[in-house]
Amino acid sequence: MSKKVALILGSDSDLPVAAPAVKRLRALGIPFEGHVMSAHRTPAAAADFSKNAAANGFGVLIAFAGKAAHLAGALAANTTLPVIGVPVKSSTLDGLDALLATVQMPSGVPVATVAIDGAENAALLAAQILALGDPELADCLIALKEEMARGVAQKDQALQGKLVEL
Amino acid sequence: MSKKVALILGSDSDLPVAAPAVKRLRALGIPFEGHVMSAHRTPAAAADFSKNAAANGFGVLIAFAGKAAHLAGALAANTTLPVIGVPVKSSTLDGLDALLATVQMPSGVPVATVAIDGAENAALLAAQILALGDPELADCLIALKEEMARGVAQKDQALQGKLVEL
Amino acid sequence: MSKKVALILGSDSDLPVAAPAVKRLRALGIPFEGHVMSAHRTPAAAADFSKNAAANGFGVLIAFAGKAAHLAGALAANTTLPVIGVPVKSSTLDGLDALLATVQMPSGVPVATVAIDGAENAALLAAQILALGDPELADCLIALKEEMARGVAQKDQALQGKLVEL
Amino acid sequence: MSKKVALILGSDSDLPVAAPAVKRLRALGIPFEGHVMSAHRTPAAAADFSKNAAANGFGVLIAFAGKAAHLAGALAANTTLPVIGVPVKSSTLDGLDALLATVQMPSGVPVATVAIDGAENAALLAAQILALGDPELADCLIALKEEMARGVAQKDQALQGKLVEL
Amino acid sequence: MSKKVALILGSDSDLPVAAPAVKRLRALGIPFEGHVMSAHRTPAAAADFSKNAAANGFGVLIAFAGKAAHLAGALAANTTLPVIGVPVKSSTLDGLDALLATVQMPSGVPVATVAIDGAENAALLAAQILALGDPELADCLIALKEEMARGVAQKDQALQGKLVEL
Amino acid sequence: MSKKVALILGSDSDLPVAAPAVKRLRALGIPFEGHVMSAHRTPAAAADFSKNAAANGFGVLIAFAGKAAHLAGALAANTTLPVIGVPVKSSTLDGLDALLATVQMPSGVPVATVAIDGAENAALLAAQILALGDPELADCLIALKEEMARGVAQKDQALQGKLVEL
Amino acid sequence: MSKKVALILGSDSDLPVAAPAVKRLRALGIPFEGHVMSAHRTPAAAADFSKNAAANGFGVLIAFAGKAAHLAGALAANTTLPVIGVPVKSSTLDGLDALLATVQMPSGVPVATVAIDGAENAALLAAQILALGDPELADCLIALKEEMARGVAQKDQALQGKLVEL
Amino acid sequence: MSKKVALILGSDSDLPVAAPAVKRLRALGIPFEGHVMSAHRTPAAAADFSKNAAANGFGVLIAFAGKAAHLAGALAANTTLPVIGVPVKSSTLDGLDALLATVQMPSGVPVATVAIDGAENAALLAAQILALGDPELADCLIALKEEMARGVAQKDQALQGKLVEL
Repeated sequence: MSKKVALILGSDSDLPVAAPAVKRLRALGIPFEGHVMSAHRTPAAAADFSKNAAANGFGVLIAFAGKAAHLAGALAANTTLPVIGVPVKSSTLDGLDALLATVQMPSGVPVATVAIDGAENAALLAAQILALGDPELADCLIALKEEMARGVAQKDQALQGKLVEL
Repeated sequence: MSKKVALILGSDSDLPVAAPAVKRLRALGIPFEGHVMSAHRTPAAAADFSKNAAANGFGVLIAFAGKAAHLAGALAANTTLPVIGVPVKSSTLDGLDALLATVQMPSGVPVATVAIDGAENAALLAAQILALGDPELADCLIALKEEMARGVAQKDQALQGKLVEL
Repeated sequence: MSKKVALILGSDSDLPVAAPAVKRLRALGIPFEGHVMSAHRTPAAAADFSKNAAANGFGVLIAFAGKAAHLAGALAANTTLPVIGVPVKSSTLDGLDALLATVQMPSGVPVATVAIDGAENAALLAAQILALGDPELADCLIALKEEMARGVAQKDQALQGKLVEL
Repeated sequence: MSKKVALILGSDSDLPVAAPAVKRLRALGIPFEGHVMSAHRTPAAAADFSKNAAANGFGVLIAFAGKAAHLAGALAANTTLPVIGVPVKSSTLDGLDALLATVQMPSGVPVATVAIDGAENAALLAAQILALGDPELADCLIALKEEMARGVAQKDQALQGKLVEL
Repeated sequence: MSKKVALILGSDSDLPVAAPAVKRLRALGIPFEGHVMSAHRTPAAAADFSKNAAANGFGVLIAFAGKAAHLAGALAANTTLPVIGVPVKSSTLDGLDALLATVQMPSGVPVATVAIDGAENAALLAAQILALGDPELADCLIALKEEMARGVAQKDQALQGKLVEL
Repeated sequence: MSKKVALILGSDSDLPVAAPAVKRLRALGIPFEGHVMSAHRTPAAAADFSKNAAANGFGVLIAFAGKAAHLAGALAANTTLPVIGVPVKSSTLDGLDALLATVQMPSGVPVATVAIDGAENAALLAAQILALGDPELADCLIALKEEMARGVAQKDQALQGKLVEL
Repeated sequence: MSKKVALILGSDSDLPVAAPAVKRLRALGIPFEGHVMSAHRTPAAAADFSKNAAANGFGVLIAFAGKAAHLAGALAANTTLPVIGVPVKSSTLDGLDALLATVQMPSGVPVATVAIDGAENAALLAAQILALGDPELADCLIALKEEMARGVAQKDQALQGKLVEL
Repeated sequence: MSKKVALILGSDSDLPVAAPAVKRLRALGIPFEGHVMSAHRTPAAAADFSKNAAANGFGVLIAFAGKAAHLAGALAANTTLPVIGVPVKSSTLDGLDALLATVQMPSGVPVATVAIDGAENAALLAAQILALGDPELADCLIALKEEMARGVAQKDQALQGKLVEL
């Protein structure tokens, strides 16, 4: 059975941003857990979770955090599992602070950073990682990619009508 | 045997930036290939490489590119393998252009972005991904992490002497 | 007869941004086609379209894309026709990501970049390019420029009344 | 005979940045003139040049300017020929000021902006524009693109040796 | 009698931003004219206005423009009167483009730049400049500064009540 | 008895941003005063307040200011008490201007800068500083930190229900 | 006789940046004084200088400062004379911090900001301001502008030779 | 006796940046310890140090870190002592990444951030904090401030000679 994915939210207010990741993982049948943990407010809980994540059956950790977004880095400091960071846009600076605080990690402790508010892609990246050891999941991802291409082709068709109406 | 890692350089001038990744993969005993391919100058070659990467035994692709750094995205468009992007600093804008062009991918096509010029971490992230299916490699990464921590402790010791001399 | 202009939208959600280009081309009597194609979701379709664009009667390609806006570059990689890139503002970073991802192209593969959300100017630039071989269109553009100047002069007149009311 | 390209330098100190454009146009056999003119120091000369450019046999204007780079816009204000802007990096802000001052043109007056210090691409873009009416030049550009791709393939070969030596 | 101030708007849509300058000049009894002129759409009109401004009784020019805000620079290119630039925030980049395009002028052609959307201060700066030759206006400005200080002191008083209610 | 904290607002419009600091200080039982004073509109009042702050029983000054936020620096120039600066987001640039104007102080005159609009943290930092000499306050802060951690744990519990409903 | 210009340096290390202003004022025969004063290290001296500047025969103040560049604003807070701010580039952030701290002044207290390190233009702007009451100086500025234009024309001539040699 | 200050370096390569803090604390007679500890490479050591810092006689912690500078935040997560963060400029982005990652802390966990590479000010801020409970140290800081002002006055004198030589 596939390893689990952990979705760690720095704040429960990040849930709307994280929701597409929840839905994507569910749709792909990938087991996951969701938690609110903070690098700054519950540092011990976050460190403990990360230290035990491999032993507890997790394969990939995804962290959602805004502003001085240290959560992904704090998890990555305590595990050798791949950690994906989703910088979350907050009320100022349009997410640039979270992006830089997530991606600019020092040598030795990588964080796989996706786009600002890029929850869907975080889930897909986790799936791609797990799919290396799960051929069935790999097939799902290939099918999903083809479906995505067909969706664009359909939108191209639909555009023809809209252009006429402009 | 472990799957291979592909190191794709957008330009051969990126080799000094990519070198730490080469060395880290070699030190970890992870098989890899290195290639110069460009999303803009050899788009067909890059697309073909990526389409066939899984079949050719690759597990992770790492792309190095600067400026309007499209290489990681162009590879990710053609595979469901995890693609790691290393934004390369060039002569202007300090790598911010490459960072944004690499990380801000649209939904459906993730790129796991590391720090600007973060080749060492790209290699470690690739290793972490492959280690999910390779317990021996996972042990190597745990050992490396411990060694890194000991290195910091030694530098802490060495600092005491330097402080006296200031 | 004038060559065609292609308007390529990275997403159908870019249509409101692209609409002024559609209207301007139509008003100038320049034949055009509109398509939804993605550098990341339908890379083969985009490459094929671009490779065959010259043979299919296109003279200029205009690409609309946001975030890590690779579409203009992906088209330019596959044609020697002039490619115009319109960076599209999305939910974060105010279009700066799209601007840098569009304009900072490496040597050998230019993209003619216009302002963020600058669809009107993309259409005018395409018209200016086509007008080099189409004296009638050139006259239209000169007339349009004169009309634009007259419009400003009328607004200057209208301002006099508004100033009194302030 | 092909129309001429004008290379307008805001300052003679921009010549090293502009040199690759000079060389590329020369190599492609495209006639050109080079001038130093400033939107701020010689506004009348710049306006006059631009107003008469079409009548004087020019097909494309390329402007090089740094800081509050108004030159391309000042030329575009006075002609309906395509104007290409090359933002030049100066002693502060890494060229971001010149990029924004060049690309963010208001509706009605487009400037085709290339990368910061992107002289080579400005020349290629001019060539692509002129090639729409010059099949021989179009063939040259196709050949150049193929040569560029072969160059990358050769660098890929050369990389194999360098990787062994790392 | 005091020299006139010219308020030049790059677009009539800048009037709401410029309104505080109109009101401030009127309150100070400084004669002024307002015009819509564009560096890009009516370059000749703008240049002519600026060339003749001194002869027409103007002492200071204030330019309002957004995006690639060239208007202040275009005026300054054609006069030795002091030119004040007000960068106007537009739909993207929060006015940073207009600020840099206004303030980063090359040596020889200064623009006195105030804050983004800083119309009030542009009017005050114009008044300060004219007051050097107008002792009565100078006294008005001193009185205004004292009134401003008293206003802050009153707000300090009012704050005490608000704090209790928090 | 604990020393007082001064909350200095550059403008009374900053009160909504400052309110969380007022509430936090009140909840911790730390005496404070609030004032509207401006580095630019009432420079003498601000300087006098700061010069006399220590003698008047203040231990920490907190300054709230936006745009070219000089208030914290102006206070710090006139006292050796710790000065905390809160950059306030205003209508443009998302608070980046205020952040840089507050934090980038020259050697010799520090300002302890917190996040943009970070009033709550400014109050907590003031409390941490005062708590060095006030064991009871120190215990309050430890209790507050534990309560904060419990709050996150409760949100983690609550998240489990929300995830099911997604 | 013309009023004096004050050149106020926030640090004596700013002298190389300020030197072109010294030379330009001297060449124009405008009387000036230079001082080192700091908004943060000698706030009383800076405030006193500014308060008395008009009475002491100054017409314009020019402030040079880097980082959180408050000097121009601190002077402007204490006078109704026009104050020109020159943001000075320091070791980080390329002068952007100084630019924003100088230009983004609140309503009521303008600073006439020139380009980063734009000392030459600060002197010219001061001269333009003083020239409103000094016809001889006004003639000098007109002559200087013409000389500048001739200089560009000469460089245009010289470019012709350099182009041949490329 | 005064409480100790801890200087925590994220990497021993930060020592040149931190040296002015060491010297300033020594000159002020403030006891201190220096350590190399990393939020990412030795998270447990950093957390333990911080948890025990108050009990071990520390009054203020100063953290030096570059890039995704989480060190100050990681310390602050584990103590209620005041934590000062010094963002360190590294090879890209001019320290902006470190500044944002240090200052943009979430509510509840403040970091007192000083300028990029602002070690001297970090030490002075620590001294100001400790001086609240140490009148002798407070007197030292007042004396230092007066000495600083005299230094500026001397530089003002010295400038007079340098201006003549320009």
